[in-house]
Amino acid sequence: MDRWLINGVASDSLPVADRGLSYGDGLFETIAVRAGQCRFLAAHFDRLAEGCDRLGIPAPDRQQITDELDQLVAGTEHASAKIIITRGTGPRGYQPPKLCQPTRILGLQTTSPVPDATCGVRVRYCETSISRNPALAGIKTLNRLEQVLARAEWDDAGIAEGLMLNDRREVVCGTMSNLFFTHAGILFTPDLSESGVSGIMRKMTLQVAQSHGVEVRELTVSKADLETADDIFLSNALIGVWPVIELHGQKYQRSDVTKQIMQGLFDMGVIECGI
Amino acid sequence: MDRWLINGVASDSLPVADRGLSYGDGLFETIAVRAGQCRFLAAHFDRLAEGCDRLGIPAPDRQQITDELDQLVAGTEHASAKIIITRGTGPRGYQPPKLCQPTRILGLQTTSPVPDATCGVRVRYCETSISRNPALAGIKTLNRLEQVLARAEWDDAGIAEGLMLNDRREVVCGTMSNLFFTHAGILFTPDLSESGVSGIMRKMTLQVAQSHGVEVRELTVSKADLETADDIFLSNALIGVWPVIELHGQKYQRSDVTKQIMQGLFDMGVIECGI
Repeated sequence: MDRWLINGVASDSLPVADRGLSYGDGLFETIAVRAGQCRFLAAHFDRLAEGCDRLGIPAPDRQQITDELDQLVAGTEHASAKIIITRGTGPRGYQPPKLCQPTRILGLQTTSPVPDATCGVRVRYCETSISRNPALAGIKTLNRLEQVLARAEWDDAGIAEGLMLNDRREVVCGTMSNLFFTHAGILFTPDLSESGVSGIMRKMTLQVAQSHGVEVRELTVSKADLETADDIFLSNALIGVWPVIELHGQKYQRSDVTKQIMQGLFDMGVIECGI
Repeated sequence: MDRWLINGVASDSLPVADRGLSYGDGLFETIAVRAGQCRFLAAHFDRLAEGCDRLGIPAPDRQQITDELDQLVAGTEHASAKIIITRGTGPRGYQPPKLCQPTRILGLQTTSPVPDATCGVRVRYCETSISRNPALAGIKTLNRLEQVLARAEWDDAGIAEGLMLNDRREVVCGTMSNLFFTHAGILFTPDLSESGVSGIMRKMTLQVAQSHGVEVRELTVSKADLETADDIFLSNALIGVWPVIELHGQKYQRSDVTKQIMQGLFDMGVIECGI
């Protein structure tokens, strides 16, 4: 990140006693800044609020963060913004302090529009499994070591993403993206009640599908489901949608459903989905 | 903590871009300082080295940390010391940077000897489950949200610890301690190949048991096993051993095996086990 605001003050250092460091006791959001605006900010706030509620951290003030983001983003066309909310500092030990003063961290990194990835990406399966725990599923906590270990498995720039499976051999998500596939005109995506992050671009994708009359099913997904899929794509807040052209050696061609969804996302401001 | 050394420099603030905060991408150790010495320091270093190896973080220099701990501990009789090793800062994204410069954080908090807990503690079961993932089991990573949520479940000072179960309803550990029970002269403790932290006091307890000819079994543990146990105790680096006098309403009386083990730990310098 190029610039940070910590509790409203420009700073790039944090008290080392912050529970965000000690225990990963907090949440984050990564937001696309496009044409000088934070894209889908309300949806990011909703997920952050749900995460705070689930972890028992007082929800941050949306207006305050919006004002601070405005300050940070001013004059920036294309960037990645980050919001981190931690439970703040506290005495030693896992027990949350009674009086919790969350730490509010905003960061901004100017970025360049990436080369068009809508032509498709190559994807692998990861060995590192993703664990199941309904208490943490769906929200975007600072506990991300499984994703780090999964992403560390390959160093081939030709592979854009790796898919993670749980101990039941169900395919849950990419290391940094949500997974979709289509079959016979129906859109499928893994159920996230036990693992994974309920992505903002996933949410928008489901909205677009529904508004276009595409049937959507959230369910457990096996490797075999992906082998017989018409096509596969990945989503996240920064990339929009990446069609998968190859997974574990198998080739895919973009389906009409995927084309329709990408067009719908593009119409909502996801410029990365311009075909 | 009263004092911190970050990469050898007295400081209480950390770069906000450190991956320890972003992803919990690191490890920690909590060490008892007794009579001015870091207790079982070699064993803590061994676990830290194993954790670094598993996460792909360059192992820290033991001599350097030992020297820095000496500097921090000087003149302190009774304290809790902390070592945190993170993967350091890096560009945005889960992928670990090729050139990793770990952050080395040492902390010291002076403490008072606690009232004798060897008379026994009351314990509950937690609702928050502990997830299973062999990639992270046994080591002490900065991803500790499950423990935070489990510890947040109760606020009754009369309950000293909560036991955590996995999704198979196996009892794995306490939020901050390892679990043991005895039955017919045999010492049992949960297998930690899928969850939990392989505690230093657990290791010492197993050593003492073996050196005293007590049969030890590591296995999956059910609530029913604990209901039929002769007695139960908990261990961690700071508390030594806590006999459990009550779990979920059931009362226990200390067994001869537990007495023998506590005496053995006391003889190794675990003064908290003095009866």
